[in-house]
Amino acid sequence: MRAGNAAAVEIDEFAAWMARGLAHFERAADTALPPATRAPQRLHEAMRYAALGGGKRVRPLLVYAAGECGARAGEAALDSVALAVEFVHVYSLIHDDLPCMDDDVLRRGRPTVHVAFDEATAMLAGDALQAEAFCVLADAPVAAETRAALMRELAHAVSTFGMCGGQAIDLASVGRSLSASELETMHRMKTGALLLACVKMGALAVGADAVALAALDRYGRAVGLAFQIVDDVLDVEASSTSLGKTAGKDALRDKPTYVSMLGLAAANARAEALRKEALDALAQQGEEALRLRQLADFIVLRNC
Amino acid sequence: MRAGNAAAVEIDEFAAWMARGLAHFERAADTALPPATRAPQRLHEAMRYAALGGGKRVRPLLVYAAGECGARAGEAALDSVALAVEFVHVYSLIHDDLPCMDDDVLRRGRPTVHVAFDEATAMLAGDALQAEAFCVLADAPVAAETRAALMRELAHAVSTFGMCGGQAIDLASVGRSLSASELETMHRMKTGALLLACVKMGALAVGADAVALAALDRYGRAVGLAFQIVDDVLDVEASSTSLGKTAGKDALRDKPTYVSMLGLAAANARAEALRKEALDALAQQGEEALRLRQLADFIVLRNC
Repeated sequence: MRAGNAAAVEIDEFAAWMARGLAHFERAADTALPPATRAPQRLHEAMRYAALGGGKRVRPLLVYAAGECGARAGEAALDSVALAVEFVHVYSLIHDDLPCMDDDVLRRGRPTVHVAFDEATAMLAGDALQAEAFCVLADAPVAAETRAALMRELAHAVSTFGMCGGQAIDLASVGRSLSASELETMHRMKTGALLLACVKMGALAVGADAVALAALDRYGRAVGLAFQIVDDVLDVEASSTSLGKTAGKDALRDKPTYVSMLGLAAANARAEALRKEALDALAQQGEEALRLRQLADFIVLRNC
Repeated sequence: MRAGNAAAVEIDEFAAWMARGLAHFERAADTALPPATRAPQRLHEAMRYAALGGGKRVRPLLVYAAGECGARAGEAALDSVALAVEFVHVYSLIHDDLPCMDDDVLRRGRPTVHVAFDEATAMLAGDALQAEAFCVLADAPVAAETRAALMRELAHAVSTFGMCGGQAIDLASVGRSLSASELETMHRMKTGALLLACVKMGALAVGADAVALAALDRYGRAVGLAFQIVDDVLDVEASSTSLGKTAGKDALRDKPTYVSMLGLAAANARAEALRKEALDALAQQGEEALRLRQLADFIVLRNC
């Protein structure tokens, strides 16, 4: 078999793994979310509309990939972790899209939650999804010590020193100029902290050893920042149709981004350097880190 | 000493206990909340403005009172529990006051958070306080198993089958008529679930035995519902000045309440019956339940 064919086979095999992971996650989410037939119906409908509405599911995939770096015993808890991080992500999107924040009407190719429902329901759906994330972790089929560690990791990742804090800095930065290090801090908090938590929580759930945890921590930090830089690049390069959300909005809102700060070429180069850093972090890991390596490529080389 | 004097002494002694508890809680909250000097400053300022802005602190007091019904060993964790439940309560107030919900401008005698800051900051402050609640529980100085149990209790209490669900039913009920049982379900979820969690979590933190837990569960349910009925009564009877929030707003918004459904006299009678039910639940408890008994009286007989 020629090298080109081998690469193509590997890509196909990874695409199949992703497809299986996505289908598995959708079923798990459908089961875990409160049913729309149960009161309060409209709130449950809004949560399901937002959480079952597609998306790349990068966070659950990172959880499943990290979960290959430990014992099989903890695998049952990986769904709980995948659900928790995605519920938090979806809650942050719902609140971010509200009129008082980014005021966006399009997300994943569909009307945002406050457009499809109403503002109050959208706010409550976000609030409830944050609570639901902790519910699924609290009920995860794993030892109490692990559950406590998982909830601790998530709580800190979404605190004011993580996701919420990054949102606040983002909000305050509109129309202002940030230094390169301020921009990086904002992104590491706003997007990076939760992406890092996906990798660490997946590894915690399966009891990965200290060496693997340290490697995955370094990997998670690199991939977390790379993800946001690529997002900034795509906001400039891609169309709203391929993104499924409003393209070009950062520039319209005069938001500082990697592209506005470094230019397209340097932003792309930085993302590529972070991809190499992520792969390098996994150098001592074996075949069990295959999916993490492939996800690093996917995250940086994606076009939507 | 005459009976009247004995009662007066007991009330003074309870007032002193409350005052010590409040002062202790304020210090603990001041220490636990992220400092306003640290970025993101405006978000931290808003969280501190809301969480340090006074209030009756019924939830922390219930935690401390329930914490007297177990071993001294767990006492160090009571502050964490008190902070967590109050942070959740404060987050719910901030979001509830937003224009898309109750659109209220006055809370605890001061401008609401979105008035004093802005809507986006208010939403983020609420989001961050929910996360902070889980952070303090995750870091509570108690065994991992207890921490996991505390976070589980809180997560379920604030889920769509608890506080968030109650808010959604409340929202959907404006201008509609509810049956008495629908109204009770709404209140048990919206206010009662978190008040019950205060009592259960306080008892869990100090390792209360199963008999005490069952008694406190029954007590918490009764007190939780009584609290909301008294709130409904005060909304009609009291002034905005004494309440520190807008009085009479339920009627203005055509919201179903215990008063609109049963009338004032029957609502007061129901609150009194629930006070008796709460005291009855504690009949087999000894002196360790003194504060819980006094709080049941305070919650029903308060005038603000």
